[in-house]
Amino acid sequence: MNTLASRIDPNEFPIRSIAVIGLGLLGGSVARAIRHRDADCEIRLIGYARRKETRDFALEQGGFDAVTDDFLAAAKQTDLVVIATPVDRIAEYAVKIAAACPHVLMTDVGSTKFGIVESVGKNPEAAARFVAAHPIAGSEKTGIEHAHANLFDGKPIVITPSEKERPGAVDAVHRFWESTGGRVIRMTPRRHDDLLAMTSHMPHLMSALVAKQLPDEAISMVGTGWLDTTRIAAGDEKLWTAIVSENRPAILASLQSAAADLTHLIDIVQNADDESLHEYLRIARDKRTAIPS
Amino acid sequence: MNTLASRIDPNEFPIRSIAVIGLGLLGGSVARAIRHRDADCEIRLIGYARRKETRDFALEQGGFDAVTDDFLAAAKQTDLVVIATPVDRIAEYAVKIAAACPHVLMTDVGSTKFGIVESVGKNPEAAARFVAAHPIAGSEKTGIEHAHANLFDGKPIVITPSEKERPGAVDAVHRFWESTGGRVIRMTPRRHDDLLAMTSHMPHLMSALVAKQLPDEAISMVGTGWLDTTRIAAGDEKLWTAIVSENRPAILASLQSAAADLTHLIDIVQNADDESLHEYLRIARDKRTAIPS
Repeated sequence: MNTLASRIDPNEFPIRSIAVIGLGLLGGSVARAIRHRDADCEIRLIGYARRKETRDFALEQGGFDAVTDDFLAAAKQTDLVVIATPVDRIAEYAVKIAAACPHVLMTDVGSTKFGIVESVGKNPEAAARFVAAHPIAGSEKTGIEHAHANLFDGKPIVITPSEKERPGAVDAVHRFWESTGGRVIRMTPRRHDDLLAMTSHMPHLMSALVAKQLPDEAISMVGTGWLDTTRIAAGDEKLWTAIVSENRPAILASLQSAAADLTHLIDIVQNADDESLHEYLRIARDKRTAIPS
Repeated sequence: MNTLASRIDPNEFPIRSIAVIGLGLLGGSVARAIRHRDADCEIRLIGYARRKETRDFALEQGGFDAVTDDFLAAAKQTDLVVIATPVDRIAEYAVKIAAACPHVLMTDVGSTKFGIVESVGKNPEAAARFVAAHPIAGSEKTGIEHAHANLFDGKPIVITPSEKERPGAVDAVHRFWESTGGRVIRMTPRRHDDLLAMTSHMPHLMSALVAKQLPDEAISMVGTGWLDTTRIAAGDEKLWTAIVSENRPAILASLQSAAADLTHLIDIVQNADDESLHEYLRIARDKRTAIPS
Protein backbone atom coordinates (compact mmCIF):
# COMPACT_ATOMS: atom_id res chain seq x y z
CA MET A 1 0.00 0.00 0.00
CA ASN A 2 1.32 3.38 -0.96
CA THR A 3 -0.27 5.09 2.00
CA LEU A 4 0.85 8.39 3.39
CA ALA A 5 2.46 6.87 6.46
CA SER A 6 4.53 4.46 4.41
CA ARG A 7 5.63 7.15 1.98
CA ILE A 8 6.96 9.53 4.62
CA ASP A 9 10.31 8.49 6.11
CA PRO A 10 9.42 7.60 9.71
CA ASN A 11 12.90 8.51 10.89
CA GLU A 12 12.47 12.14 9.97
CA PHE A 13 8.99 13.51 10.37
CA PRO A 14 6.57 10.67 11.01
CA ILE A 15 3.09 11.94 10.10
CA ARG A 16 0.49 9.79 11.77
CA SER A 17 -1.89 12.57 12.73
CA ILE A 18 -2.85 15.81 11.04
CA ALA A 19 -4.68 18.84 12.38
CA VAL A 20 -6.55 21.02 9.93
CA ILE A 21 -7.05 24.57 11.17
CA GLY A 22 -9.98 26.14 9.33
CA LEU A 23 -12.56 23.86 7.77
CA GLY A 24 -13.56 25.45 4.47
CA LEU A 25 -13.36 24.09 0.94
CA LEU A 26 -9.58 23.59 1.09
CA GLY A 27 -9.24 22.37 4.67
CA GLY A 28 -12.16 20.00 4.17
CA SER A 29 -10.71 18.71 0.91
CA VAL A 30 -7.29 18.06 2.49
CA ALA A 31 -9.03 15.77 4.98
CA ARG A 32 -11.07 14.02 2.30
CA ALA A 33 -8.03 13.57 0.02
CA ILE A 34 -5.97 12.04 2.86
CA ARG A 35 -8.83 9.85 4.07
CA HIS A 36 -9.52 8.69 0.52
CA ARG A 37 -5.93 7.48 0.07
CA ASP A 38 -5.45 6.25 3.63
CA ALA A 39 -7.25 2.95 3.15
CA ASP A 40 -5.97 1.50 6.40
CA CYS A 41 -7.03 4.52 8.48
CA GLU A 42 -3.46 4.95 9.72
CA ILE A 43 -3.78 8.73 9.80
CA ARG A 44 -5.71 10.48 12.55
CA LEU A 45 -7.43 13.69 11.38
CA ILE A 46 -8.40 16.45 13.80
CA GLY A 47 -10.34 19.49 12.69
CA TYR A 48 -10.56 22.96 14.19
CA ALA A 49 -13.38 25.37 13.37
CA ARG A 50 -15.06 28.13 15.31
CA ARG A 51 -18.60 27.38 14.13
CA LYS A 52 -20.29 24.41 15.75
CA GLU A 53 -22.22 23.56 12.55
CA THR A 54 -18.92 23.29 10.68
CA ARG A 55 -17.39 21.02 13.33
CA ASP A 56 -20.49 18.81 13.35
CA PHE A 57 -20.37 18.50 9.56
CA ALA A 58 -16.62 17.70 9.65
CA LEU A 59 -17.11 14.96 12.22
CA GLU A 60 -20.25 13.44 10.75
CA GLN A 61 -19.58 13.70 7.03
CA GLY A 62 -16.12 15.20 6.52
CA GLY A 63 -13.87 12.26 7.37
CA PHE A 64 -12.43 13.74 10.57
CA ASP A 65 -11.75 11.56 13.64
CA ALA A 66 -12.19 14.45 16.06
CA VAL A 67 -13.06 18.14 16.05
CA THR A 68 -12.43 20.95 18.50
CA ASP A 69 -12.91 24.67 18.98
CA ASP A 70 -9.43 24.93 20.55
CA PHE A 71 -6.81 25.13 17.80
CA LEU A 72 -3.87 24.61 20.17
CA ALA A 73 -5.46 21.47 21.56
CA ALA A 74 -5.80 20.20 17.97
CA ALA A 75 -2.20 21.10 17.11
CA LYS A 76 -0.79 19.50 20.27
CA GLN A 77 -2.18 16.09 19.34
CA THR A 78 -0.67 15.96 15.87
CA ASP A 79 2.50 15.65 13.78
CA LEU A 80 1.46 18.09 11.06
CA VAL A 81 -0.79 21.14 11.15
CA VAL A 82 -2.37 22.38 7.92
CA ILE A 83 -3.41 26.01 8.35
CA ALA A 84 -6.34 26.53 5.99
CA THR A 85 -7.67 29.90 7.16
CA PRO A 86 -7.97 33.13 5.13
CA VAL A 87 -4.53 34.44 4.15
CA ASP A 88 -4.50 37.31 6.63
CA ARG A 89 -4.67 34.93 9.62
CA ILE A 90 -2.13 32.25 8.62
CA ALA A 91 1.11 33.76 10.02
CA GLU A 92 -0.59 34.48 13.33
CA TYR A 93 -1.74 30.88 13.72
CA ALA A 94 1.72 29.55 12.75
CA VAL A 95 3.47 31.63 15.40
CA LYS A 96 0.98 30.71 18.15
CA ILE A 97 1.12 27.01 17.30
CA ALA A 98 4.94 27.02 17.15
CA ALA A 99 5.10 28.56 20.62
CA ALA A 100 2.71 26.01 22.15
CA CYS A 101 3.76 22.85 20.27
CA PRO A 102 7.53 22.46 20.11
CA HIS A 103 7.67 19.57 17.62
CA VAL A 104 4.80 19.99 15.22
CA LEU A 105 5.42 20.58 11.52
CA MET A 106 3.22 23.22 9.82
CA THR A 107 2.06 24.06 6.31
CA ASP A 108 -0.70 26.21 4.86
CA VAL A 109 -2.92 26.67 1.80
CA GLY A 110 -2.75 30.44 1.32
CA SER A 111 -2.90 31.91 -2.22
CA THR A 112 -0.22 34.46 -1.34
CA LYS A 113 3.15 33.50 0.06
CA PHE A 114 5.66 36.37 0.38
CA GLY A 115 3.93 38.25 3.23
CA ILE A 116 3.15 35.06 5.15
CA VAL A 117 6.71 33.67 4.84
CA GLU A 118 8.13 37.06 5.81
CA SER A 119 5.88 37.34 8.89
CA VAL A 120 6.55 33.79 10.06
CA GLY A 121 10.26 34.30 9.36
CA LYS A 122 10.49 36.91 12.10
CA ASN A 123 9.91 34.11 14.59
CA PRO A 124 12.79 31.59 14.31
CA GLU A 125 10.94 28.86 16.21
CA ALA A 126 7.96 29.09 13.85
CA ALA A 127 10.11 29.52 10.72
CA ALA A 128 12.01 26.29 11.44
CA ARG A 129 8.84 24.22 11.20
CA PHE A 130 6.56 26.15 8.83
CA VAL A 131 6.75 25.11 5.16
CA ALA A 132 4.56 27.46 3.13
CA ALA A 133 2.40 25.92 0.40
CA HIS A 134 -0.30 26.90 -2.05
CA PRO A 135 -2.45 24.22 -3.64
CA ILE A 136 -3.72 25.85 -6.85
CA ALA A 137 -7.08 24.21 -6.60
CA GLY A 138 -10.39 25.65 -5.64
CA SER A 139 -13.68 26.87 -6.80
CA GLU A 140 -15.89 29.90 -6.45
CA LYS A 141 -17.81 27.67 -4.03
CA THR A 142 -16.68 27.91 -0.46
CA GLY A 143 -17.39 25.83 2.61
CA ILE A 144 -16.64 22.32 3.81
CA GLU A 145 -19.88 21.05 2.23
CA HIS A 146 -18.23 21.47 -1.20
CA ALA A 147 -15.00 19.72 -0.18
CA HIS A 148 -14.06 16.61 -2.13
CA ALA A 149 -11.31 14.01 -2.18
CA ASN A 150 -10.18 14.75 -5.74
CA LEU A 151 -9.83 18.52 -5.47
CA PHE A 152 -6.03 18.33 -5.68
CA ASP A 153 -5.73 15.58 -8.29
CA GLY A 154 -3.07 16.61 -10.78
CA LYS A 155 -3.29 20.23 -9.61
CA PRO A 156 -0.14 22.31 -9.08
CA ILE A 157 0.79 22.66 -5.42
CA VAL A 158 3.49 25.28 -4.95
CA ILE A 159 5.87 25.01 -1.99
CA THR A 160 7.81 28.19 -1.24
CA PRO A 161 10.65 27.43 1.18
CA SER A 162 12.00 30.27 3.33
CA GLU A 163 15.43 28.56 3.68
CA LYS A 164 14.87 28.81 7.44
CA GLU A 165 13.23 25.40 7.82
CA ARG A 166 14.80 22.55 9.82
CA PRO A 167 16.55 19.94 7.66
CA GLY A 168 14.02 17.46 6.30
CA ALA A 169 10.98 19.67 6.97
CA VAL A 170 10.54 20.84 3.37
CA ASP A 171 10.87 17.30 2.02
CA ALA A 172 8.36 15.97 4.55
CA VAL A 173 5.79 18.62 3.63
CA HIS A 174 6.55 18.03 -0.06
CA ARG A 175 5.68 14.34 0.38
CA PHE A 176 2.58 15.23 2.39
CA TRP A 177 1.23 17.44 -0.41
CA GLU A 178 2.07 14.81 -3.03
CA SER A 179 -0.02 12.38 -1.00
CA THR A 180 -3.11 14.57 -1.58
CA GLY A 181 -2.86 13.86 -5.32
CA GLY A 182 -1.29 17.18 -6.32
CA ARG A 183 1.78 17.92 -8.42
CA VAL A 184 4.31 19.72 -6.20
CA ILE A 185 6.45 22.59 -7.58
CA ARG A 186 9.00 24.59 -5.55
CA MET A 187 9.90 28.26 -6.00
CA THR A 188 10.60 31.35 -3.94
CA PRO A 189 7.69 33.14 -2.23
CA ARG A 190 8.33 36.29 -4.30
CA ARG A 191 8.26 34.43 -7.60
CA HIS A 192 5.11 32.57 -6.55
CA ASP A 193 3.35 35.85 -5.79
CA ASP A 194 4.48 37.49 -9.03
CA LEU A 195 3.26 34.55 -11.10
CA LEU A 196 0.02 34.18 -9.15
CA ALA A 197 -0.79 37.85 -9.65
CA MET A 198 -0.83 37.08 -13.39
CA THR A 199 -2.48 33.64 -13.33
CA SER A 200 -5.03 34.19 -10.60
CA HIS A 201 -5.27 37.53 -8.78
CA MET A 202 -5.46 39.89 -11.77
CA PRO A 203 -7.79 37.47 -13.65
CA HIS A 204 -10.04 37.38 -10.58
CA LEU A 205 -10.30 41.18 -10.50
CA MET A 206 -10.91 41.33 -14.28
CA SER A 207 -13.63 38.72 -13.95
CA ALA A 208 -15.24 40.84 -11.22
CA LEU A 209 -14.94 43.91 -13.46
CA VAL A 210 -16.72 42.18 -16.34
CA ALA A 211 -19.48 40.97 -13.99
CA LYS A 212 -19.85 44.46 -12.49
CA GLN A 213 -20.36 45.96 -15.96
CA LEU A 214 -23.55 43.98 -16.58
CA PRO A 215 -26.60 46.28 -16.73
CA ASP A 216 -29.71 44.85 -15.09
CA GLU A 217 -31.69 44.98 -18.33
CA ALA A 218 -29.18 42.56 -19.92
CA ILE A 219 -29.46 39.86 -17.25
CA SER A 220 -31.87 37.74 -19.29
CA MET A 221 -29.50 37.78 -22.27
CA VAL A 222 -26.23 36.45 -20.89
CA GLY A 223 -24.82 33.35 -22.52
CA THR A 224 -22.30 30.72 -21.54
CA GLY A 225 -19.41 33.03 -22.53
CA TRP A 226 -20.34 35.62 -19.92
CA LEU A 227 -21.05 32.88 -17.36
CA ASP A 228 -17.60 31.30 -17.85
CA THR A 229 -15.75 34.60 -17.87
CA THR A 230 -17.39 35.79 -14.66
CA ARG A 231 -17.57 32.47 -12.78
CA ILE A 232 -14.85 33.38 -10.25
CA ALA A 233 -16.48 36.76 -9.60
CA ALA A 234 -18.85 34.78 -7.38
CA GLY A 235 -15.95 34.29 -4.96
CA ASP A 236 -16.00 35.62 -1.39
CA GLU A 237 -15.15 39.36 -1.34
CA LYS A 238 -13.62 39.13 2.14
CA LEU A 239 -11.14 36.40 1.13
CA TRP A 240 -10.20 38.28 -2.03
CA THR A 241 -9.77 41.64 -0.31
CA ALA A 242 -7.29 39.88 2.02
CA ILE A 243 -5.46 38.31 -0.96
CA VAL A 244 -5.09 41.71 -2.65
CA SER A 245 -3.82 43.16 0.60
CA GLU A 246 -1.18 40.39 0.89
CA ASN A 247 0.07 40.71 -2.72
CA ARG A 248 -0.59 44.37 -3.51
CA PRO A 249 2.56 45.37 -5.50
CA ALA A 250 2.46 42.38 -7.87
CA ILE A 251 -1.32 42.66 -8.37
CA LEU A 252 -1.00 46.38 -9.04
CA ALA A 253 1.72 45.76 -11.65
CA SER A 254 -0.39 43.08 -13.29
CA LEU A 255 -3.50 45.33 -13.37
CA GLN A 256 -1.44 48.16 -14.84
CA SER A 257 -0.12 45.84 -17.54
CA ALA A 258 -3.71 44.78 -18.29
CA ALA A 259 -4.79 48.45 -18.44
CA ALA A 260 -2.02 49.27 -20.93
CA ASP A 261 -3.06 46.30 -23.05
CA LEU A 262 -6.71 47.43 -22.87
CA THR A 263 -5.71 50.89 -24.13
CA HIS A 264 -3.91 49.17 -27.02
CA LEU A 265 -6.98 47.03 -27.75
CA ILE A 266 -9.28 50.08 -27.69
CA ASP A 267 -6.99 51.78 -30.23
CA ILE A 268 -7.19 48.74 -32.49
CA VAL A 269 -11.01 48.65 -32.30
CA GLN A 270 -11.35 52.42 -32.70
CA ASN A 271 -9.08 52.49 -35.76
CA ALA A 272 -10.90 49.53 -37.33
CA ASP A 273 -7.51 47.84 -37.59
CA ASP A 274 -8.91 44.39 -38.29
CA GLU A 275 -5.53 42.88 -39.12
CA SER A 276 -4.17 43.78 -35.68
CA LEU A 277 -7.37 42.61 -33.98
CA HIS A 278 -7.14 39.26 -35.77
CA GLU A 279 -3.52 38.91 -34.61
CA TYR A 280 -4.42 39.98 -31.04
CA LEU A 281 -7.15 37.34 -30.84
CA ARG A 282 -4.93 34.71 -32.43
CA ILE A 283 -2.22 35.21 -29.79
CA ALA A 284 -4.86 34.98 -27.06
CA ARG A 285 -6.28 31.78 -28.57
CA ASP A 286 -2.81 30.23 -28.80
CA LYS A 287 -2.17 31.02 -25.11
CA ARG A 288 -5.51 29.55 -24.09
CA THR A 289 -5.40 26.43 -26.20
CA ALA A 290 -1.86 25.62 -25.04
CA ILE A 291 -3.50 24.60 -21.74
CA PRO A 292 -6.03 21.77 -21.66
CA SER A 293 -9.17 22.53 -19.64
CA MET B 1 -47.54 15.39 -30.93
CA ASN B 2 -46.29 18.90 -30.46
CA THR B 3 -44.09 18.79 -33.56
CA LEU B 4 -42.86 21.82 -35.42
CA ALA B 5 -45.25 21.28 -38.33
CA SER B 6 -48.28 21.09 -36.06
CA ARG B 7 -47.22 24.16 -34.09
CA ILE B 8 -46.85 26.44 -37.09
CA ASP B 9 -50.15 27.62 -38.58
CA PRO B 10 -50.23 25.87 -41.97
CA ASN B 11 -52.30 28.67 -43.47
CA GLU B 12 -49.59 31.23 -43.01
CA PHE B 13 -46.07 29.95 -43.45
CA PRO B 14 -46.10 26.18 -43.56
CA ILE B 15 -42.61 24.98 -42.69
CA ARG B 16 -42.13 21.46 -43.91
CA SER B 17 -38.60 21.85 -45.15
CA ILE B 18 -35.66 23.87 -43.88
CA ALA B 19 -32.37 24.74 -45.55
CA VAL B 20 -29.39 25.47 -43.34
CA ILE B 21 -26.77 27.62 -45.05
CA GLY B 22 -23.44 27.14 -43.30
CA LEU B 23 -22.88 23.96 -41.30
CA GLY B 24 -20.91 24.93 -38.22
CA LEU B 25 -21.76 24.52 -34.54
CA LEU B 26 -24.95 26.60 -34.79
CA GLY B 27 -26.18 25.42 -38.19
CA GLY B 28 -25.51 21.82 -37.22
CA SER B 29 -27.27 22.25 -33.87
CA VAL B 30 -30.36 23.79 -35.52
CA ALA B 31 -30.66 20.61 -37.57
CA ARG B 32 -30.14 18.33 -34.59
CA ALA B 33 -32.59 20.30 -32.42
CA ILE B 34 -35.29 20.13 -35.12
CA ARG B 35 -34.65 16.46 -35.87
CA HIS B 36 -34.68 15.61 -32.16
CA ARG B 37 -38.17 17.14 -31.73
CA ASP B 38 -39.54 16.03 -35.10
CA ALA B 39 -40.31 12.47 -34.09
CA ASP B 40 -42.42 11.81 -37.17
CA CYS B 41 -39.76 13.09 -39.57
CA GLU B 42 -42.20 15.58 -41.03
CA ILE B 43 -39.50 18.17 -41.62
CA ARG B 44 -37.03 17.83 -44.48
CA LEU B 45 -33.59 19.26 -43.71
CA ILE B 46 -31.19 20.33 -46.46
CA GLY B 47 -27.68 21.50 -45.68
CA TYR B 48 -25.34 23.72 -47.64
CA ALA B 49 -21.59 23.80 -47.01
CA ARG B 50 -18.64 24.49 -49.25
CA ARG B 51 -16.38 21.77 -47.81
CA LYS B 52 -17.13 18.22 -48.92
CA GLU B 53 -16.04 16.77 -45.54
CA THR B 54 -18.61 18.99 -43.81
CA ARG B 55 -21.38 17.93 -46.19
CA ASP B 56 -20.50 14.27 -45.74
CA PHE B 57 -20.59 14.61 -41.96
CA ALA B 58 -23.94 16.45 -42.13
CA LEU B 59 -25.51 13.75 -44.25
CA GLU B 60 -24.05 10.76 -42.45
CA GLN B 61 -24.18 11.89 -38.83
CA GLY B 62 -25.78 15.34 -38.69
CA GLY B 63 -29.45 14.53 -39.23
CA PHE B 64 -29.74 16.13 -42.68
CA ASP B 65 -31.84 14.55 -45.42
CA ALA B 66 -29.77 16.06 -48.21
CA VAL B 67 -26.69 18.26 -48.67
CA THR B 68 -25.48 20.42 -51.52
CA ASP B 69 -22.71 22.82 -52.49
CA ASP B 70 -25.27 25.07 -54.24
CA PHE B 71 -26.97 27.29 -51.68
CA LEU B 72 -29.65 28.51 -54.09
CA ALA B 73 -30.56 24.93 -54.94
CA ALA B 74 -30.93 24.27 -51.21
CA ALA B 75 -33.03 27.40 -50.66
CA LYS B 76 -35.31 26.72 -53.63
CA GLN B 77 -36.43 23.38 -52.18
CA THR B 78 -37.47 24.74 -48.78
CA ASP B 79 -39.96 26.87 -46.85
CA LEU B 80 -37.42 28.38 -44.43
CA VAL B 81 -33.73 29.17 -44.85
CA VAL B 82 -31.55 29.48 -41.74
CA ILE B 83 -28.43 31.45 -42.63
CA ALA B 84 -25.73 30.25 -40.22
CA THR B 85 -22.61 31.72 -41.78
CA PRO B 86 -20.16 34.19 -40.20
CA VAL B 87 -21.86 37.56 -39.57
CA ASP B 88 -20.12 39.37 -42.44
CA ARG B 89 -21.75 37.09 -45.07
CA ILE B 90 -25.34 36.90 -43.81
CA ALA B 91 -26.88 39.94 -45.56
CA GLU B 92 -25.32 38.94 -48.88
CA TYR B 93 -26.83 35.44 -48.69
CA ALA B 94 -30.23 36.84 -47.72
CA VAL B 95 -30.36 39.19 -50.71
CA LYS B 96 -29.24 36.50 -53.18
CA ILE B 97 -31.70 33.95 -51.82
CA ALA B 98 -34.58 36.46 -51.85
CA ALA B 99 -33.89 37.25 -55.52
CA ALA B 100 -33.81 33.58 -56.54
CA CYS B 101 -36.55 32.16 -54.31
CA PRO B 102 -39.65 34.34 -54.29
CA HIS B 103 -41.52 32.64 -51.42
CA VAL B 104 -38.93 31.39 -48.96
CA LEU B 105 -38.81 32.75 -45.42
CA MET B 106 -35.35 33.51 -44.01
CA THR B 107 -33.73 33.85 -40.60
CA ASP B 108 -30.15 33.85 -39.34
CA VAL B 109 -28.02 33.16 -36.26
CA GLY B 110 -25.64 36.14 -36.31
CA SER B 111 -24.38 37.59 -33.01
CA THR B 112 -24.77 41.13 -34.36
CA LYS B 113 -28.03 42.44 -35.78
CA PHE B 114 -28.06 46.16 -36.62
CA GLY B 115 -25.70 46.04 -39.61
CA ILE B 116 -27.31 42.89 -41.03
CA VAL B 117 -30.88 44.24 -40.70
CA GLU B 118 -29.80 47.56 -42.22
CA SER B 119 -28.10 45.86 -45.20
CA VAL B 120 -30.97 43.50 -45.87
CA GLY B 121 -33.40 46.42 -45.42
CA LYS B 122 -32.03 48.14 -48.52
CA ASN B 123 -33.56 45.32 -50.56
CA PRO B 124 -37.36 45.38 -50.06
CA GLU B 125 -37.86 41.88 -51.47
CA ALA B 126 -35.33 40.42 -49.01
CA ALA B 127 -36.49 42.57 -46.08
CA ALA B 128 -40.07 41.32 -46.47
CA ARG B 129 -39.03 37.74 -45.77
CA PHE B 130 -35.90 38.01 -43.59
CA VAL B 131 -36.52 37.84 -39.82
CA ALA B 132 -33.20 38.44 -38.04
CA ALA B 133 -32.43 36.26 -35.04
CA HIS B 134 -29.61 35.55 -32.62
CA PRO B 135 -29.67 32.37 -30.56
CA ILE B 136 -27.48 33.19 -27.54
CA ALA B 137 -26.02 29.73 -27.40
CA GLY B 138 -22.65 28.52 -28.40
CA SER B 139 -19.29 27.42 -27.27
CA GLU B 140 -15.65 28.16 -27.91
CA LYS B 141 -15.80 24.93 -29.91
CA THR B 142 -16.67 25.39 -33.54
CA GLY B 143 -17.67 22.94 -36.25
CA ILE B 144 -20.60 20.65 -36.95
CA GLU B 145 -18.88 17.81 -35.09
CA HIS B 146 -19.66 19.65 -31.82
CA ALA B 147 -23.31 20.33 -32.74
CA HIS B 148 -25.95 18.91 -30.42
CA ALA B 149 -29.72 18.76 -30.15
CA ASN B 150 -29.89 20.54 -26.78
CA LEU B 151 -27.72 23.54 -27.60
CA PHE B 152 -30.69 25.93 -27.54
CA ASP B 153 -32.59 24.40 -24.60
CA GLY B 154 -33.78 27.25 -22.41
CA LYS B 155 -31.31 29.65 -24.05
CA PRO B 156 -32.35 33.18 -25.03
CA ILE B 157 -33.03 33.56 -28.75
CA VAL B 158 -33.38 37.22 -29.70
CA ILE B 159 -35.52 38.17 -32.70
CA THR B 160 -34.94 41.70 -33.97
CA PRO B 161 -37.72 42.65 -36.41
CA SER B 162 -37.03 45.35 -38.99
CA GLU B 163 -40.73 46.28 -39.26
CA LYS B 164 -40.36 45.60 -43.00
CA GLU B 165 -41.37 41.93 -42.82
CA ARG B 166 -44.54 40.57 -44.46
CA PRO B 167 -47.43 40.06 -42.05
CA GLY B 168 -47.05 36.76 -40.24
CA ALA B 169 -43.37 36.32 -41.06
CA VAL B 170 -42.05 37.39 -37.65
CA ASP B 171 -44.54 35.16 -35.84
CA ALA B 172 -43.65 32.19 -38.03
CA VAL B 173 -39.94 32.61 -37.37
CA HIS B 174 -40.68 33.17 -33.66
CA ARG B 175 -42.44 29.79 -33.55
CA PHE B 176 -39.64 28.15 -35.51
CA TRP B 177 -37.04 29.28 -32.99
CA GLU B 178 -39.25 28.23 -30.08
CA SER B 179 -39.36 24.79 -31.64
CA THR B 180 -35.56 24.47 -31.22
CA GLY B 181 -36.00 24.60 -27.44
CA GLY B 182 -35.01 28.26 -26.99
CA ARG B 183 -36.72 31.11 -25.17
CA VAL B 184 -37.57 33.78 -27.73
CA ILE B 185 -37.23 37.50 -26.87
CA ARG B 186 -37.96 40.39 -29.27
CA MET B 187 -36.22 43.76 -29.39
CA THR B 188 -34.84 46.25 -31.90
CA PRO B 189 -31.57 45.44 -33.69
CA ARG B 190 -29.88 48.49 -32.12
CA ARG B 191 -30.87 47.50 -28.60
CA HIS B 192 -29.75 43.92 -29.22
CA ASP B 193 -26.33 45.09 -30.34
CA ASP B 194 -25.93 47.49 -27.41
CA LEU B 195 -26.81 44.78 -24.90
CA LEU B 196 -24.71 42.12 -26.61
CA ALA B 197 -21.67 44.39 -26.58
CA MET B 198 -21.95 44.30 -22.77
CA THR B 199 -22.95 40.66 -22.27
CA SER B 200 -20.80 39.02 -24.93
CA HIS B 201 -18.55 41.10 -27.17
CA MET B 202 -16.70 43.13 -24.52
CA PRO B 203 -16.42 40.07 -22.21
CA HIS B 204 -14.95 38.11 -25.11
CA LEU B 205 -12.27 40.73 -25.69
CA MET B 206 -11.52 40.97 -21.95
CA SER B 207 -11.19 37.20 -21.78
CA ALA B 208 -8.72 37.35 -24.69
CA LEU B 209 -6.84 40.13 -22.91
CA VAL B 210 -6.47 38.07 -19.73
CA ALA B 211 -5.30 35.04 -21.75
CA LYS B 212 -2.81 37.18 -23.69
CA GLN B 213 -1.27 38.46 -20.43
CA LEU B 214 -0.12 34.97 -19.38
CA PRO B 215 3.67 34.70 -19.39
CA ASP B 216 5.01 31.36 -20.67
CA GLU B 217 6.73 30.60 -17.36
CA ALA B 218 3.35 30.67 -15.60
CA ILE B 219 1.65 28.12 -17.86
CA SER B 220 2.18 25.25 -15.41
CA MET B 221 0.55 27.24 -12.62
CA VAL B 222 -2.83 28.19 -13.98
CA GLY B 223 -5.84 27.03 -12.02
CA THR B 224 -9.52 26.60 -12.75
CA GLY B 225 -10.15 30.32 -12.24
CA TRP B 226 -7.87 31.30 -15.13
CA LEU B 227 -9.25 28.45 -17.24
CA ASP B 228 -12.85 29.59 -16.73
CA THR B 229 -12.11 33.27 -17.25
CA THR B 230 -10.24 32.65 -20.50
CA ARG B 231 -12.37 29.82 -21.90
CA ILE B 232 -13.96 31.93 -24.67
CA ALA B 233 -10.56 33.30 -25.68
CA ALA B 234 -10.17 29.97 -27.50
CA GLY B 235 -12.81 31.17 -29.97
CA ASP B 236 -12.09 31.65 -33.67
CA GLU B 237 -10.30 34.98 -34.28
CA LYS B 238 -11.79 35.35 -37.76
CA LEU B 239 -15.38 35.08 -36.51
CA TRP B 240 -14.69 37.53 -33.69
CA THR B 241 -12.91 40.07 -35.88
CA ALA B 242 -16.06 40.07 -38.05
CA ILE B 243 -18.30 40.50 -35.00
CA VAL B 244 -16.28 43.49 -33.80
CA SER B 245 -16.45 44.97 -37.28
CA GLU B 246 -20.26 44.61 -37.32
CA ASN B 247 -20.81 46.16 -33.87
CA ARG B 248 -17.88 48.54 -33.54
CA PRO B 249 -19.47 51.62 -31.87
CA ALA B 250 -21.25 49.66 -29.12
CA ILE B 251 -18.19 47.45 -28.46
CA LEU B 252 -15.96 50.50 -28.32
CA ALA B 253 -18.28 52.19 -25.80
CA SER B 254 -18.35 49.02 -23.71
CA LEU B 255 -14.53 48.67 -23.77
CA GLN B 256 -14.16 52.32 -22.79
CA SER B 257 -16.53 51.82 -19.89
CA ALA B 258 -14.48 48.78 -18.81
CA ALA B 259 -11.25 50.82 -19.10
CA ALA B 260 -12.69 53.59 -16.91
CA ASP B 261 -13.72 50.99 -14.34
CA LEU B 262 -10.26 49.42 -14.48
CA THR B 263 -8.68 52.81 -13.77
CA HIS B 264 -11.00 53.10 -10.77
CA LEU B 265 -10.06 49.60 -9.59
CA ILE B 266 -6.34 50.35 -9.94
CA ASP B 267 -6.82 53.47 -7.77
CA ILE B 268 -8.56 51.37 -5.13
CA VAL B 269 -5.75 48.77 -5.10
CA GLN B 270 -2.99 51.40 -5.20
CA ASN B 271 -4.51 53.34 -2.30
CA ALA B 272 -5.01 50.18 -0.23
CA ASP B 273 -8.66 51.18 0.06
CA ASP B 274 -9.83 47.81 1.30
CA GLU B 275 -13.33 49.00 2.15
CA SER B 276 -13.94 50.10 -1.47
CA LEU B 277 -12.37 46.90 -2.80
CA HIS B 278 -14.64 44.81 -0.60
CA GLU B 279 -17.66 46.77 -1.89
CA TYR B 280 -16.45 46.48 -5.52
CA LEU B 281 -16.13 42.70 -5.22
CA ARG B 282 -19.46 42.42 -3.41
CA ILE B 283 -21.29 44.21 -6.24
CA ALA B 284 -19.58 41.92 -8.77
CA ARG B 285 -20.53 38.82 -6.77
CA ASP B 286 -24.16 39.99 -6.52
CA LYS B 287 -24.31 40.50 -10.29
CA ARG B 288 -22.80 37.07 -10.93
CA THR B 289 -24.83 35.12 -8.43
CA ALA B 290 -28.08 36.70 -9.66
CA ILE B 291 -27.69 34.42 -12.69
CA PRO B 292 -27.68 30.66 -12.28
CA SER B 293 -24.92 28.90 -14.22
